[in-house]
Amino acid sequence: MTIKALTFDVFGTVVDWRSSVIRDGERLGERVGLDIDWAAFADAWRGGYGPSMNRVRTGELPWTKIDDLHRMILDELLKKFGISGLSKEEIADFNRVWHRLAPWPDAAGGLWRLKSRYLIATLSNGNVSLLANMAKYGGLPWDCILSAELAGHYKPDAETYLKAIELLSCEPREVMMVAAHQGDLHHAAGVGMKTAYVFRPFERGPNAKKDLPPDLDFDIIAHDFHDLADQLGCH
Amino acid sequence: MTIKALTFDVFGTVVDWRSSVIRDGERLGERVGLDIDWAAFADAWRGGYGPSMNRVRTGELPWTKIDDLHRMILDELLKKFGISGLSKEEIADFNRVWHRLAPWPDAAGGLWRLKSRYLIATLSNGNVSLLANMAKYGGLPWDCILSAELAGHYKPDAETYLKAIELLSCEPREVMMVAAHQGDLHHAAGVGMKTAYVFRPFERGPNAKKDLPPDLDFDIIAHDFHDLADQLGCH
Repeated sequence: MTIKALTFDVFGTVVDWRSSVIRDGERLGERVGLDIDWAAFADAWRGGYGPSMNRVRTGELPWTKIDDLHRMILDELLKKFGISGLSKEEIADFNRVWHRLAPWPDAAGGLWRLKSRYLIATLSNGNVSLLANMAKYGGLPWDCILSAELAGHYKPDAETYLKAIELLSCEPREVMMVAAHQGDLHHAAGVGMKTAYVFRPFERGPNAKKDLPPDLDFDIIAHDFHDLADQLGCH
Repeated sequence: MTIKALTFDVFGTVVDWRSSVIRDGERLGERVGLDIDWAAFADAWRGGYGPSMNRVRTGELPWTKIDDLHRMILDELLKKFGISGLSKEEIADFNRVWHRLAPWPDAAGGLWRLKSRYLIATLSNGNVSLLANMAKYGGLPWDCILSAELAGHYKPDAETYLKAIELLSCEPREVMMVAAHQGDLHHAAGVGMKTAYVFRPFERGPNAKKDLPPDLDFDIIAHDFHDLADQLGCH
């Protein structure tokens, strides 16, 4: 294998969206006096993500940034959970919680090690400004922010992977997709990319049902980003 | 002014392309035994840049990465300067000198200061992989690599600036273009961006004729990136 660049799924693979949304929700709830099951809220918010991207992927909606999709879902959830009385600014700020997701404990350290040997880039459905703000917030040392937004196609459309490969001036086999989600990796492999699966058993919380064991056809299976760096020969 | 992001011209503004190309040319010349005026070579290579981008801008060429435009110019210059006997790998590597340009002495330090308060991004005609490699080489801490390549239009086409503003999820007035070239800033101002002019008196070498004094309508006129950071209130 001659790998030049690593591209990373972000939500769930690099950052712990669930705990971060719960934490921000709890802080908002304390400030304005709300009694909400924020874990259920976080799961519902994330649950709306795939279906709303599919509305873009099928052409029902024109290209829409994740920030705006998150906001459409949030507006529905505020009604559903009976939350009223928030100011326009409070709602806009809560929607930006997705810019303030905390990295998994090994993520920043592992990325610094990987960066010493490879070009490391995001390859996320998050929009460019969301990913850049999140990197500043979490200290993620990306060499490059790549996003579905640059292709005008959401993963797992092949165009998203192909656009990233083109922007990296690489051959598909020179780029390794890193993700905690097997579907993402199967689609990356489908365009000729290498694949690294990373276990993130707590992405969906402590009580979520376990993922299926990873496909042994992935080029690398790693416990976390430090293990990935070890397996890729980084100091 | 409420500035959220700074976008930077790169060749000449952040990095000293001329000295870097001369230095790499001299090393190549020593290794393979060539007696060439590398300053003239560097100036001719850079001199071919505007005209070759114009072939893309006018539609004579389809979208072509700067790497490939640099290579087209290089192939002509090798003939013109009577350079033969280089291997395919040596030519390809010399073309990548544009990925290895050294920052001006204040650039990396100034960018770290600016980064503490603003989102900092490239906005260059260089392609994404060139800019990402250059950042690794020179220690440039960009939050985001933005490029003409993402718009499919070279500066100073308005589309290039507008695509960057859209990807930053900003209003034009929230983004400040930083450049050592007045034309770049005038076009940025034309789409509503703020402007910062930085003096780079040695971009074209010690004997180049002086630039015209900067337009006093620019929002900031700075001696270098530390002066820019001071004027923008960064610690």
